[in-house]
Amino acid sequence: MGSRIGIGLLGLGTVGGGVASILFSPQERHPLVSDLEVARVAVRDLNRARTIDLPADRLTTDPHEVVRDPAVDVVVEVIGGIEPARTLILEAIAAGKSVVTANKAVIARHGQEIAEAAASAGVYVLIEAAVGGGIPIIEPLKQSLGGNRIDRVSGIINGTTNYILTRMADEGAAYDDVLAEAQKLGYAEADPAADVDGLDAADKIAILSTLAFGGAVERSDVPTQGISQLQGRDVDYARQLGYGVKLLAVAERMANEVQTSRSLPLSLRVQPTLVPTDHPLFGVNGVNNAILVEGEPIGRVMFYGPGAGAGPTASAVVADILNIAGIRQASDNPGRLDPLLAAGSWRSCSLVDPGEVRQRHYVRFNTTDTPGVIGSIGSCFGDRAVSIQSIVQFNATAAGAEIVVITHEVSQRQMDDALNAISNLAEVSGLTAHLGCL
Amino acid sequence: MGSRIGIGLLGLGTVGGGVASILFSPQERHPLVSDLEVARVAVRDLNRARTIDLPADRLTTDPHEVVRDPAVDVVVEVIGGIEPARTLILEAIAAGKSVVTANKAVIARHGQEIAEAAASAGVYVLIEAAVGGGIPIIEPLKQSLGGNRIDRVSGIINGTTNYILTRMADEGAAYDDVLAEAQKLGYAEADPAADVDGLDAADKIAILSTLAFGGAVERSDVPTQGISQLQGRDVDYARQLGYGVKLLAVAERMANEVQTSRSLPLSLRVQPTLVPTDHPLFGVNGVNNAILVEGEPIGRVMFYGPGAGAGPTASAVVADILNIAGIRQASDNPGRLDPLLAAGSWRSCSLVDPGEVRQRHYVRFNTTDTPGVIGSIGSCFGDRAVSIQSIVQFNATAAGAEIVVITHEVSQRQMDDALNAISNLAEVSGLTAHLGCL
Repeated sequence: MGSRIGIGLLGLGTVGGGVASILFSPQERHPLVSDLEVARVAVRDLNRARTIDLPADRLTTDPHEVVRDPAVDVVVEVIGGIEPARTLILEAIAAGKSVVTANKAVIARHGQEIAEAAASAGVYVLIEAAVGGGIPIIEPLKQSLGGNRIDRVSGIINGTTNYILTRMADEGAAYDDVLAEAQKLGYAEADPAADVDGLDAADKIAILSTLAFGGAVERSDVPTQGISQLQGRDVDYARQLGYGVKLLAVAERMANEVQTSRSLPLSLRVQPTLVPTDHPLFGVNGVNNAILVEGEPIGRVMFYGPGAGAGPTASAVVADILNIAGIRQASDNPGRLDPLLAAGSWRSCSLVDPGEVRQRHYVRFNTTDTPGVIGSIGSCFGDRAVSIQSIVQFNATAAGAEIVVITHEVSQRQMDDALNAISNLAEVSGLTAHLGCL
Repeated sequence: MGSRIGIGLLGLGTVGGGVASILFSPQERHPLVSDLEVARVAVRDLNRARTIDLPADRLTTDPHEVVRDPAVDVVVEVIGGIEPARTLILEAIAAGKSVVTANKAVIARHGQEIAEAAASAGVYVLIEAAVGGGIPIIEPLKQSLGGNRIDRVSGIINGTTNYILTRMADEGAAYDDVLAEAQKLGYAEADPAADVDGLDAADKIAILSTLAFGGAVERSDVPTQGISQLQGRDVDYARQLGYGVKLLAVAERMANEVQTSRSLPLSLRVQPTLVPTDHPLFGVNGVNNAILVEGEPIGRVMFYGPGAGAGPTASAVVADILNIAGIRQASDNPGRLDPLLAAGSWRSCSLVDPGEVRQRHYVRFNTTDTPGVIGSIGSCFGDRAVSIQSIVQFNATAAGAEIVVITHEVSQRQMDDALNAISNLAEVSGLTAHLGCL
């Protein structure tokens, strides 16, 4: 329908291959897909067998050749990692090319630098595939929710941990056993730290927060608790109390009034969290992801779908390419950008002291099985104005008992004070779990 | 940030008032909202008290004045109904103005005419608010899923009927009682036909289908079954069998191979449908809506949120206005449109013979309580190759029994043949319910 757009692929692995296979089979897709031509591809090994039939001269082992190639209009970065991805993205921008990337790590850490370079070069850097796999969430945040004052973005945004948590809940299996099997099945990496320690989810919530609230926060300051310490018994106790355990990522506004100060106070966190059975996130299982956006006046909307995988991620990458192709038909003046699609920051945001963050908590203590222990723990909470929703004893034996407490909403500071006092009780031998609770 | 955009509102009722209240409180929203100025507003009664503080000369009772006003760049039509809405939209387009409308009835019936007029005038007609209230679904279909071959769009897209069905299920209440109370609470119109007969859902699925598959079908040919004949006992039996009953709207591709013929065969329908408890649509309750989109390679994504209400609908209207404002910053050449945002049709689609449509069915018969009746009914299905998943007898008394059958996937034609044969059985006094089943 329009003119040809040259696509340069940096990487032809799982996602890159998925993108290529969409571009090589435009039938039954949006007609604009036919205008996209794979002009140049950087690969590691020229001789590897491929399902995609590309002329040999379009392949190179030098990614800089792709970025420099005058036949390339849009550079698609799907190699991942920080370097050389960051440098290649900046080179592409400097060469006047728009960039599409699935790389949450580089955007969460260098998003500001990349966005500024893109704005001054008059090009787009689009990142739909960086969060939520195939789920449209980046573009809706940029293009469909701008009329709202966003109050909170939260969700399940790491497929590996959600797969592990789902199997722990369904089978009563232990974390280590499920992780080992997930690695065997390819759902978890050999080095699973980025997923199970919550770092990947923290990258993604930092990106969502920047778009939702209009400004970045310091990625390294996001409090992050993964699932590697999570015990199967807490998943089981949560279930008995009417909850599922999910690795939740949250970004929320900490001030409801109109902001007169320069910087909007936010809380971001990643934490295993109890989700009640009637909550929309409760039913999000396996490698699926879901993101809830809450704002005024929209209320609450949720975006749900496959959070990973070659096909879904490729769908998101191609969506970004199509947006660039589409807007080129409306405007070929590279100095003028659509501010919604470009989505530059428009204010300063900052993280509040984590002590101020209010939420519900789930804690488990090992105690002696003495009659007064529930009363002593209850008093420690009560004395610090921590209101308790439920306090339940599990597994009482001669050796001791487990006490599980779910609180009402309290500040982290109040909670820490109470936990300190409780740790000094003679009957309490340890705080053995501490999770969030919706 | 950019230049001022004049907004002309046709209607200042629930939705129009919601839009105005966003535009009059731009703080904490996207900065582009500050560029939007309410230039002219058409109302029914100039003297009605309003919460919005507008200079008197911006109000008029003549909507044509709004459309003609040179200070108006974008016309927002929120009066609803077919006429004068259609004429006003076409007048705005002829005057070179982009249009934002929440009017599903006019788009489902006159979308083609309106889209052609917009394309030749080089303006946009955006309709996010027409389907799903505040849920971003129109823009994601247009801008985020174009790389996919869409196979099916289905969902709960009428809030009134979902509210009624939720209360019937939760309270075991009868349809008529819940409807009467919904009317008292303002969740249902005094004349509820458009909602309860499925016409509103049919309008909306016709719109979604046009965007998902690239071409319109004849709105009046969409098979539409509402909930006004639905009996509480079927909701109860469905629950006992592990299902909820939802008014489902479906648009699906009827050919998986690449289309060589000119016209893509589709099936559209609106029908009360049993949804299993583990299906993502099962938990969509009250006035919430949800839309599932299935395609290759994305798999399945779902969009969930408030399907109606002033705030959510206004959020969607303002999103459309912002998209127009945003693209004006990238291009002020009105002859050049972004093909994704403009979303013109790109192929012909047509409805298949409803007899060819394959799905699972739920049917209930009144029968005599004789030992052979289940066998006779089973044989009638078996003789027509209708495979049965379950056949259950409810409520057996001396007066007779009720037999509920859930089939595997069969064509409507096979099903009709079998039902015909069953109606001739002496033991069967009537087919008393016939619903779809996922």
